[in-house]
Amino acid sequence: MSSAERHEVRMAQKPRIAKGTRDFSPEEVAKRDYIFSTIKKQFELFGFQPIETPSFELSETLMGKYGDEGDRLIFKILNSGDYLRGVELNKNNAFSLTSKISEKALRYDLTVPFARYVVQHQNDITFPFKRYQIQPVWRADRPQKGRFREFFQCDADVVGSSSLWQEVEFVQLYDAVFADLGLYGTTIKINHRKILSGLAEVIDAQDKLIDFTVALDKLDKIGKDKVIEEMLAKGISAESISKIDPIFSITGSFEEQLGALEAILINSVVGLEGIAQLRFLNEQLSQFALKSSTLQLELTLARGLNYYTGTIFEVAAPDGVKMGSIGGGGRYDDLTGVFGLKGIGGVGISFGLDRIYLVLEELNLFSKTITNSIDVLFVNFGDQEAAYAMKAINELRANNVVAELYPDNAKFKKQFGYADKRSIPYVVIVGEEELINNTYTLKNMKSGDQEKISLKDLIEKVKA
Amino acid sequence: MSSAERHEVRMAQKPRIAKGTRDFSPEEVAKRDYIFSTIKKQFELFGFQPIETPSFELSETLMGKYGDEGDRLIFKILNSGDYLRGVELNKNNAFSLTSKISEKALRYDLTVPFARYVVQHQNDITFPFKRYQIQPVWRADRPQKGRFREFFQCDADVVGSSSLWQEVEFVQLYDAVFADLGLYGTTIKINHRKILSGLAEVIDAQDKLIDFTVALDKLDKIGKDKVIEEMLAKGISAESISKIDPIFSITGSFEEQLGALEAILINSVVGLEGIAQLRFLNEQLSQFALKSSTLQLELTLARGLNYYTGTIFEVAAPDGVKMGSIGGGGRYDDLTGVFGLKGIGGVGISFGLDRIYLVLEELNLFSKTITNSIDVLFVNFGDQEAAYAMKAINELRANNVVAELYPDNAKFKKQFGYADKRSIPYVVIVGEEELINNTYTLKNMKSGDQEKISLKDLIEKVKA
Repeated sequence: MSSAERHEVRMAQKPRIAKGTRDFSPEEVAKRDYIFSTIKKQFELFGFQPIETPSFELSETLMGKYGDEGDRLIFKILNSGDYLRGVELNKNNAFSLTSKISEKALRYDLTVPFARYVVQHQNDITFPFKRYQIQPVWRADRPQKGRFREFFQCDADVVGSSSLWQEVEFVQLYDAVFADLGLYGTTIKINHRKILSGLAEVIDAQDKLIDFTVALDKLDKIGKDKVIEEMLAKGISAESISKIDPIFSITGSFEEQLGALEAILINSVVGLEGIAQLRFLNEQLSQFALKSSTLQLELTLARGLNYYTGTIFEVAAPDGVKMGSIGGGGRYDDLTGVFGLKGIGGVGISFGLDRIYLVLEELNLFSKTITNSIDVLFVNFGDQEAAYAMKAINELRANNVVAELYPDNAKFKKQFGYADKRSIPYVVIVGEEELINNTYTLKNMKSGDQEKISLKDLIEKVKA
Repeated sequence: MSSAERHEVRMAQKPRIAKGTRDFSPEEVAKRDYIFSTIKKQFELFGFQPIETPSFELSETLMGKYGDEGDRLIFKILNSGDYLRGVELNKNNAFSLTSKISEKALRYDLTVPFARYVVQHQNDITFPFKRYQIQPVWRADRPQKGRFREFFQCDADVVGSSSLWQEVEFVQLYDAVFADLGLYGTTIKINHRKILSGLAEVIDAQDKLIDFTVALDKLDKIGKDKVIEEMLAKGISAESISKIDPIFSITGSFEEQLGALEAILINSVVGLEGIAQLRFLNEQLSQFALKSSTLQLELTLARGLNYYTGTIFEVAAPDGVKMGSIGGGGRYDDLTGVFGLKGIGGVGISFGLDRIYLVLEELNLFSKTITNSIDVLFVNFGDQEAAYAMKAINELRANNVVAELYPDNAKFKKQFGYADKRSIPYVVIVGEEELINNTYTLKNMKSGDQEKISLKDLIEKVKA
């Protein structure tokens, strides 16, 4: 069997795509683009500027930045050419071989490439630098429902400013995007790393901050008693825990909750700093009515504590939609230290595209017009008629109407079948009679109505 | 030294990006997006629908589709986990090892993934299927000026129709895009595989089609005598070549050239078929004035002869701009045979994004407004003033004006310096006096003019 024949045989089975990846159909691309462009529009109105970084980076840029688990999940790219030359092969040691046969890796997130970008281009950047970035990332995770090996991240960050007005703006930005998407009822949860640190201080468990917050995070799920049980098991004393007992039953408005927390944290300098910052945020934001979202103090929110040093954000979908967070972010002190540039802090948020897509789908919030790809189809009865149709099609397109000629002089039924399948709202029939009278017969596919009209009227009708 | 310390040391040097890849600054992203969205708008007006495919495919999908050189240039992704388990290591044989330790590879172009998509989703697709796809591809080419290892391709294809109206539309599509980009003076060169085949037939060199066209392709560069020399060297007889002598001096209009060619091809069935098709194209297109481009018969055009079976397109930048082709395409008989689906032919074109970018840059065709990211900056004199400014900022954004608060209560000079560096046209000053009088002081950064105005007037002024 020749190589070509073997090839033929191998390919006879239907082709597949790689595990955890997705094709996007025209309808899906249109819906995703609608979300992207809505977010982009607000990013830009808020003064954020887009950057893009390469899909793959040098391995040294990515490795060691996401912990051992992250390193494992980074897709490595095999060196080109005779990559084994000069490499000592040591059976059964993939780990040591990898760095010798692979020097590039696919982007794992947008944060590390952004940090690399800031350091590399620091002399061209005007700080504070407000950047957004919407690009795919890749992770060798085990694929499961809603988790993919290729997915888009969508981040906005301001670096080089410690102003709390940034946080105010990010809340407004979330709110503006969800309002534009018609997604009402989202909750923007907010917490502060320094409040959590303050609480840990009060109970004398500064060294157990993670244990403490991991337990606290379960309050909604397992209730107060079990949370305390877990804290005790982690070595926090009952007497300490009693000092913060009020946090388990804090209620009231954002400001009332802050007041109650303030009483608990009264002896913690760091805790009071967190209180003051969230109070500023709440006071400023209360002057501008949020359109789609509610701001909520969420003491149990403890994401990214190895990274965030100030405010922490997380966005929940509207009540009744079962979905993890659809966005999150926070303030950090050190973006670029790992690349040798100290003192660059900032604050950023991200949007969870795939989840937002699912939420909009579930709530039926995608407008039908998003995917209405063709406005008018011209039936094709032969070249003379087609040439006459093309004149009208050109005019329609110049008027931003999506118009198309059926390409072949096929059977009437086939052409109308195509219009049906594509859900095309208008079909124009051009035959001998129309040619002679310089008219067009417009058929409304929904109502079945049909009328002979001039080109000018055709354009008006279809545009409306 | 601990692992963390070593890491620190390794990272102390400034980070770099991988060879042949690029970061895109805000200005570059804005310019690229302008090109993309201009093309997308016309794609959609012409009835094309977007699809997207994964960045990596199973290696079996890509390998063997681009020739040996292509296979070599495909970036392979290392399998995850302990990829050496069960693999017999055979020193010095990277070729045989690759398929064992890598089962995925980065997309090399958009055509093979499109073919895979069509076969995989054939039951969901309504034919004729007009799809467009704008996504990056990766090639392990040696980087050089204008050649990158990651770059975007931008393709539109119609499959499942042999109608020549598709070719008519693709010429119009090119023309519409270049007109929208303000790029006047492009030449859409056109040829036909069957005319080339006919000429080879006339000189009795059907088996030397590639030799013949490769020589012919050099006519502009080396002149008639050298071309004939090369054909003779390839074993085509002088007597044969004399039969097609007129092609070296064909002039006149598109139709006149076709007429001259017809006389030469009068005994070639296949050649006359090519003539008839181009005649149809030219006749139809002559009814619609092209806006930005000129259609030109280019007998020496011989791209993709291992693939194209009918019309061949190539677009040249305006005279005076030194640049290779900025677009190309053609008709093919068999898109999907390699994946087991026979009889799917079509026609497609592509836009060369990077080159179009360079042409627009050279001709100064990017409008300044593309990268004018911030319209108005509000100076920050403290929280009370900032809160007052935020009200105006919210109103401006609701009116689609890009407005921003300087985040910190920094020195006046620093804030104005930022406005300068970012080329922000308007700065608004809000101090005690403005607060009391409920006004805003608007400074035109170009003229230096400054005036106190109401919020309503501010919005009007800045929008204009």
